[in-house]
Amino acid sequence: MEISENALIKGIKRFEAPSDRVIRGIGDDGAVVDMEQGSYVFVQDAMTEHIHFEFAFMEGYDIGRKAVYINVSDILAMGALPLYFMVTIGIPAKMSYRDIQQIYKGMRRAAKEFDILLLGGDTTETKTDFFIDVSMVGKIVTRHYFGRNRAGKGDLIAVTGVLGESAYGLSLLKEGRTDRGLMRFIRRYRAPQPPYAVWKELVKHDITTSMMDVSDGLIIDLEKMMAESKKGARINLDQVPMPRLLKKESKESLALAGGEDYQFLFTFPPHKREALSSITEMGFPISIIGKVDTGKGVRLFEKGKEKKIAQKGYEHFGDTA
Amino acid sequence: MEISENALIKGIKRFEAPSDRVIRGIGDDGAVVDMEQGSYVFVQDAMTEHIHFEFAFMEGYDIGRKAVYINVSDILAMGALPLYFMVTIGIPAKMSYRDIQQIYKGMRRAAKEFDILLLGGDTTETKTDFFIDVSMVGKIVTRHYFGRNRAGKGDLIAVTGVLGESAYGLSLLKEGRTDRGLMRFIRRYRAPQPPYAVWKELVKHDITTSMMDVSDGLIIDLEKMMAESKKGARINLDQVPMPRLLKKESKESLALAGGEDYQFLFTFPPHKREALSSITEMGFPISIIGKVDTGKGVRLFEKGKEKKIAQKGYEHFGDTA
Repeated sequence: MEISENALIKGIKRFEAPSDRVIRGIGDDGAVVDMEQGSYVFVQDAMTEHIHFEFAFMEGYDIGRKAVYINVSDILAMGALPLYFMVTIGIPAKMSYRDIQQIYKGMRRAAKEFDILLLGGDTTETKTDFFIDVSMVGKIVTRHYFGRNRAGKGDLIAVTGVLGESAYGLSLLKEGRTDRGLMRFIRRYRAPQPPYAVWKELVKHDITTSMMDVSDGLIIDLEKMMAESKKGARINLDQVPMPRLLKKESKESLALAGGEDYQFLFTFPPHKREALSSITEMGFPISIIGKVDTGKGVRLFEKGKEKKIAQKGYEHFGDTA
Repeated sequence: MEISENALIKGIKRFEAPSDRVIRGIGDDGAVVDMEQGSYVFVQDAMTEHIHFEFAFMEGYDIGRKAVYINVSDILAMGALPLYFMVTIGIPAKMSYRDIQQIYKGMRRAAKEFDILLLGGDTTETKTDFFIDVSMVGKIVTRHYFGRNRAGKGDLIAVTGVLGESAYGLSLLKEGRTDRGLMRFIRRYRAPQPPYAVWKELVKHDITTSMMDVSDGLIIDLEKMMAESKKGARINLDQVPMPRLLKKESKESLALAGGEDYQFLFTFPPHKREALSSITEMGFPISIIGKVDTGKGVRLFEKGKEKKIAQKGYEHFGDTA
């Protein structure tokens, strides 16, 4: 890259939003923040070139925005509101200062949506691959954190939104199909905005027992939830919300195993069904797709008959928190 | 790498220390921690292969340990005690599960020394380069945070320990010189343990106005402090603490511009000189090397005569917080 450290840090400083909450921001060994007593959630999630994205399919602006979104998604999934984030970007020589600015612009856009503040981080050279690693802190605003370990026997299983959109969007990009009518899928892949409005309703009505975001694929993520909760799940393929096109093109597996949708998967006790209906009746997309039972793992049914699960999801190394 | 995501996360979970402070640790979308009211410091610092280290000179264990140390150093430099950390490691296919375990073992070793807890993070594939990115939270324990912006006119400038050891250690590794008598320099490079004991004394006696860690090189780091404090500094080469070998081999520049020593550079008002002497008399290595004045930048003197500064320090992209 053709720019000095000082110039780069000055450039990044411009993306810092002034705030009373931050006592000392970008420009020191660390940022200083006054925090009130409470429960806080810490997450950290990275995106690496060639593994999570290609610059051919995603521009710097999208990459910055997505790096923030995927961390916001983890924070919300725990029942917390995001507050602060730090970012490390690993910059290979091929990148220009303009590329880096675009990445910070994308981050700023996502940060504004959720009123989160950039505290700083690190910018480092890399020999070959670009990476971006965001850490984020949020504050629990619910009665209790939403863990993966709280699903109870008899709970119903639901998801927000539509699954498979992101994976379908990526497949379209790979095939070079970018017709106007398909852009929503590509947008979901490039900018997986967490479904904040429906999340707020779920929190307001205290619906959920267990919650997580669908990042690796419905089946694999639900399996993780069941493993942590020491339960088993049954889901009905007929009820899994997916774009009509996936059925038409026999790509249902993208909704089950595609991943990267960043919708919320959650369980709730049957007596909350009415409260949930009141939310869906307001127009918020939520689908009940199955039930928690004893046993282990996830079983898939279609028209009442059990179906073999061909592909569970995307097995990358994944989060450790 | 030859291992599945689940197995890897299980392996990492073993490095999590059980604690009452952590309500929910590794295994969920995020970690949940109860925090009391106060001022907290957030830092994030990465190391990338080929830029910050070569596996030829550093093993996984050292890399993990150093990644924690450099973040602890930043937290201490702000006047805070480290509490929690998260880590993202970017793993190219060439690495084995054993390599990764070694990295976590190194992190655990450093974490134990400072009683810090691993909250989780992310493990991600990379195509070519390895990287490790640590974010850390600490709590301010001093009357006021130690910023780079608090150096006052007339303050004296001091450093802990000896400068140039780490850069000299790296130069020895590059030359293949690993004689027994030289190992301390190599150790300083591989495991730059923050000088915690002397830091505690400085905090106890409330000595410092401004503080930072010497990571990029004395001159460049002092310039940053002066820029933030809107002051100028004069330092005397004769008083800069360095290994005798550097003088013998005419490598004084390593003490001025070598970087990676992770000693503390600080300023203090003259009336604290006696309190500081009581610390050095206890055997803690501290050297007074100059004085803060009006003006701008750093001026170097040797035997009373001003000397041109040939090389200021290591200009990588650097921290942004």
